[in-house]
Amino acid sequence: MVYQKDITVATRGHGDMLDITEALREAVRQSGIRAGIAHVFNVGSTASVGLIEFEPGLARDLPVALDRLFPPGLDYAHEQAWQDGNGHSHVQATMLGSSATVPVRGGEPVLGAWQQLFLAECDVHSRTRTLVITVMGE
Amino acid sequence: MVYQKDITVATRGHGDMLDITEALREAVRQSGIRAGIAHVFNVGSTASVGLIEFEPGLARDLPVALDRLFPPGLDYAHEQAWQDGNGHSHVQATMLGSSATVPVRGGEPVLGAWQQLFLAECDVHSRTRTLVITVMGE
Amino acid sequence: MVYQKDITVATRGHGDMLDITEALREAVRQSGIRAGIAHVFNVGSTASVGLIEFEPGLARDLPVALDRLFPPGLDYAHEQAWQDGNGHSHVQATMLGSSATVPVRGGEPVLGAWQQLFLAECDVHSRTRTLVITVMGE
Repeated sequence: MVYQKDITVATRGHGDMLDITEALREAVRQSGIRAGIAHVFNVGSTASVGLIEFEPGLARDLPVALDRLFPPGLDYAHEQAWQDGNGHSHVQATMLGSSATVPVRGGEPVLGAWQQLFLAECDVHSRTRTLVITVMGE
Repeated sequence: MVYQKDITVATRGHGDMLDITEALREAVRQSGIRAGIAHVFNVGSTASVGLIEFEPGLARDLPVALDRLFPPGLDYAHEQAWQDGNGHSHVQATMLGSSATVPVRGGEPVLGAWQQLFLAECDVHSRTRTLVITVMGE
Repeated sequence: MVYQKDITVATRGHGDMLDITEALREAVRQSGIRAGIAHVFNVGSTASVGLIEFEPGLARDLPVALDRLFPPGLDYAHEQAWQDGNGHSHVQATMLGSSATVPVRGGEPVLGAWQQLFLAECDVHSRTRTLVITVMGE
């Protein structure tokens, strides 16, 4: 069995973090799938999906760490071609990854009590993001 | 077909690396699935699962690199809320990722000769970790 | 339904980036699967698969960022055991990840207009790389 749906979320620009755990939970319930996996994929190359304890502190610490390691101010070759000021956004999003996969059991995603699904906006301005959620199993 | 099992492993604290390849191999064999994928997921937000050549040198190099890039001594916002001294653990685990997915063929996980599945403990003390292994295919 | 194929690509050594999106698209078409997921896995521990806007600028920016964060010249414990000069290659590949998973819909991989699948060679010399593509769904 395969269930697939898109969800759309609005971000407020660079460093914005959204908790999308409830959207995942809802998709898994709608799928009717009891056991398997759920895959959440960000369409586009300047935002990321991953897992974190979603609390205000870490929702700052992660983007801060990304900006420290892949700073906006470096001389990105991407910038020379496009002058859109988001070379660091691309490198950050690629390093963090485009998708997360979570087990499904008993008709629910399996997550720790302090483990949530996030979308991290790495681009330099607000965006509308489309996520494709695919639930597979039986 | 879907096969799912949990395994539990004990870690000795920050920077501990465990080779969990045999547990994956055993789960794939138990599943009876010949072709598909195997997904290994760490429940919790301060440990990671990934792939590496598992030898004593790299089992040190990876945690050392994580501590160099995401040092314990930085001023994490997570720390201000929780004072549990593991802000770096969270950021490290999120960057490294919560799960790994490996192809299954001929009833075995497909891995290179020098490619193993690891669990990396990023938290600051010893923990008991639960991994959910999901094998899907036919 | 499960479809699996191997593809082989030649890399030119450290920092080489290959766009493998067409190979993914072809595998998905050959599978006959309309909805589900496609998983692309690099066999071996010194190359990575991921998603990026594949243009010449970013194809330089990503390897440059990896070398900046995990430099060849550090004192890797891996080096003491093997003296093959690729400790940084292993750490880079593990951090970037061994596989990517993409949704499949309408018999095609779902990707943004500026989102492509890459193979990044992290090893210090040219290699022949085997990728296992698994398409699952219905």
